[in-house]
Amino acid sequence: MSHVDRQCNLPQEIVQAISSVVGNGPLALHEPRFHGNEWIYLKECLDSTFVSSVGKFVDRFEDELAAFTGAKRAVAVVNGTAALHVSLLLAGVEVGDEVLLPALTFIATANAVAYCQATPHFVDSEMNSLGMDAHALRVYLSTMAEMRGGHCVNRSTGRVIRAMVPMHTFGHPVDIEALLAVAHDFRLQLIEDAAESLGSTVGGRHTGTFGLMGTLSFNGNKTITTGGGGAILTNDVELGKRAKHITTTAKLPHRWNFVHDEVGYNYRLPNLNAALGCAQLEQLPGFLIDKRRLFVAYQSSFVNVDGVRLVAEPAGCHSNYWLQTLLLDESFAGQRDAILTATNDAGLMTRPVWALMPQLSMYKNTPKAPLPVAESLERRLINIPSSSGLLPIAP
Amino acid sequence: MSHVDRQCNLPQEIVQAISSVVGNGPLALHEPRFHGNEWIYLKECLDSTFVSSVGKFVDRFEDELAAFTGAKRAVAVVNGTAALHVSLLLAGVEVGDEVLLPALTFIATANAVAYCQATPHFVDSEMNSLGMDAHALRVYLSTMAEMRGGHCVNRSTGRVIRAMVPMHTFGHPVDIEALLAVAHDFRLQLIEDAAESLGSTVGGRHTGTFGLMGTLSFNGNKTITTGGGGAILTNDVELGKRAKHITTTAKLPHRWNFVHDEVGYNYRLPNLNAALGCAQLEQLPGFLIDKRRLFVAYQSSFVNVDGVRLVAEPAGCHSNYWLQTLLLDESFAGQRDAILTATNDAGLMTRPVWALMPQLSMYKNTPKAPLPVAESLERRLINIPSSSGLLPIAP
Repeated sequence: MSHVDRQCNLPQEIVQAISSVVGNGPLALHEPRFHGNEWIYLKECLDSTFVSSVGKFVDRFEDELAAFTGAKRAVAVVNGTAALHVSLLLAGVEVGDEVLLPALTFIATANAVAYCQATPHFVDSEMNSLGMDAHALRVYLSTMAEMRGGHCVNRSTGRVIRAMVPMHTFGHPVDIEALLAVAHDFRLQLIEDAAESLGSTVGGRHTGTFGLMGTLSFNGNKTITTGGGGAILTNDVELGKRAKHITTTAKLPHRWNFVHDEVGYNYRLPNLNAALGCAQLEQLPGFLIDKRRLFVAYQSSFVNVDGVRLVAEPAGCHSNYWLQTLLLDESFAGQRDAILTATNDAGLMTRPVWALMPQLSMYKNTPKAPLPVAESLERRLINIPSSSGLLPIAP
Repeated sequence: MSHVDRQCNLPQEIVQAISSVVGNGPLALHEPRFHGNEWIYLKECLDSTFVSSVGKFVDRFEDELAAFTGAKRAVAVVNGTAALHVSLLLAGVEVGDEVLLPALTFIATANAVAYCQATPHFVDSEMNSLGMDAHALRVYLSTMAEMRGGHCVNRSTGRVIRAMVPMHTFGHPVDIEALLAVAHDFRLQLIEDAAESLGSTVGGRHTGTFGLMGTLSFNGNKTITTGGGGAILTNDVELGKRAKHITTTAKLPHRWNFVHDEVGYNYRLPNLNAALGCAQLEQLPGFLIDKRRLFVAYQSSFVNVDGVRLVAEPAGCHSNYWLQTLLLDESFAGQRDAILTATNDAGLMTRPVWALMPQLSMYKNTPKAPLPVAESLERRLINIPSSSGLLPIAP
């Protein structure tokens, strides 16, 4: 078949490759599954009348998240954005600082920096993990930053570069050890945006537990959901206490007095949502098995489709395969929108990756590194239906 | 009985007056009631799998809130604090501005101003409504502020005073018409903190619909609850659209593209919580009747207790009687903590009002008016058990 013919057929080939695994649509990109104790726990919550800011499910959800991830402390919050915001504040990000972020990320990562009145500084990704490129970052910082009084300073802007926030894209772990080394050498705090990577590990250790803090999301499209919700992970017990305090209006414990000792946030996860989370956590190991099975099935299905490959977990890592992802060959990148149209028209929900952050009007004048890989990935990535319930139950 | 004897007996008299209405404890200050369609709607939500950021209950809750309050638009958000934050931003509060607030309020009112990098400027309350004193405010502004270029400017600090945020304390409507006149004369935006006053009206019009925007809370301790939640009310349809946009990450609608056109917030109310809210709203008229019955019963019970009176709705207003409130005579203010101890020891949960905002470490250096009434109220107010289900069903 000629290259031109392949160009014309690729959208339909992809529709067929997806359908051969998951059947015909309509299929969402990522749907939650509620086949466990969701009902029972929600009812328990209503019966107790503790649906709101205190309740046993919040404590239990936090303890079970800590146990599952191996973090010393987990603090449940209202969503992943709030988790990022508070983590940046506790990491010492100040008004006027810069924070290094991947250009290829969801908007929450950048907005959380803006909430601190700090400036996002966007850097490139690498092909293997889709996440921040540690080597490129080191080279970049070596040319544009310098150490002044123990701080990393952007020579062009004169601002302190306080922290970096790598993100584990679609659940695939970033090269966290290499990034930690860069953070160490340039005196940067490292916060992991693990919103997409619950269940993903690096060398057996859970994502979100390598940096000073890590953040999770339990939005409706995530591997497990609390309706809306998130969490902060940390191995620093004092920092965990601070996170709990500042996310619960910074109120001092007292039998009746209302005294708050700093500007806090109303970021606590309601007990109702935590109840859902407890039921979902019980099913998480099964969800992860099912998502890996889906990857294997898609991989078989796509092996004979030229021009596209399925993104696999980096070596040494275990991905939760949150969103299954196609990477088009560069020569087929021009077909992206035709593929999105064909698949969505067929009822198979797909989507491209996010617009790169520096393309958005509010972030277009912020500092950025050269972004050749992120720009290439943006043209070539497509997420395909990824719900954990798409395959028949394993025999 | 001598004055000294009365001082000794007052705590026990108050315990007896409360118990004679609501029986013996343990009784919470304010408990939610889930005797309607809560379970059905939550189940519907789970069955649909739409528990998160979109779903029919969010739209329905918003429409029904607008219908109930008479606002042209209601936007459901994650809590009352978020509603205040976004309302202040949309009212044009800028970094470095001042915002007038009652010193006697919950911490959220002040924190929302701090989130805008603006400065709270605390003013006094009046005895009748417990809310901002319009007359005192007018006199105060006349002495310390001046108009410059169409803006109200604090002469001492040189900062623009951009807005005022009166709060309807414990559900009792503030003198909103008088405050609107002050806002008009000094070119201030007026945002109503109606977190506590769902169901409260002034001249038949719902609180939260007089100012540019009004904010509601559905925390677990409020008249109705969504677990955690809040809403923005407005009669400006364009402002309502802006509020919806900015509270849902400012994403532009598109079949698959992720483009956001400003720094937005992840402040949407999950569909799961909105489902609870829809069931609660159906019962709100009944809750309001029961809360008023409780006020009448307490009033009879306290009529013969010297040294204390029950706070009643201001003339021309209809209060939701969210929290039933005792006001001690000034000469009995020294008994406040003994009363709190006796009632809580008896299992009847009571609490004092919040510490005045300028007493808190983070707000002690912000500008403030003389606060003689707020200081007096702080010594003398006690909230007593107020749940709508405390009395037997009316015959």
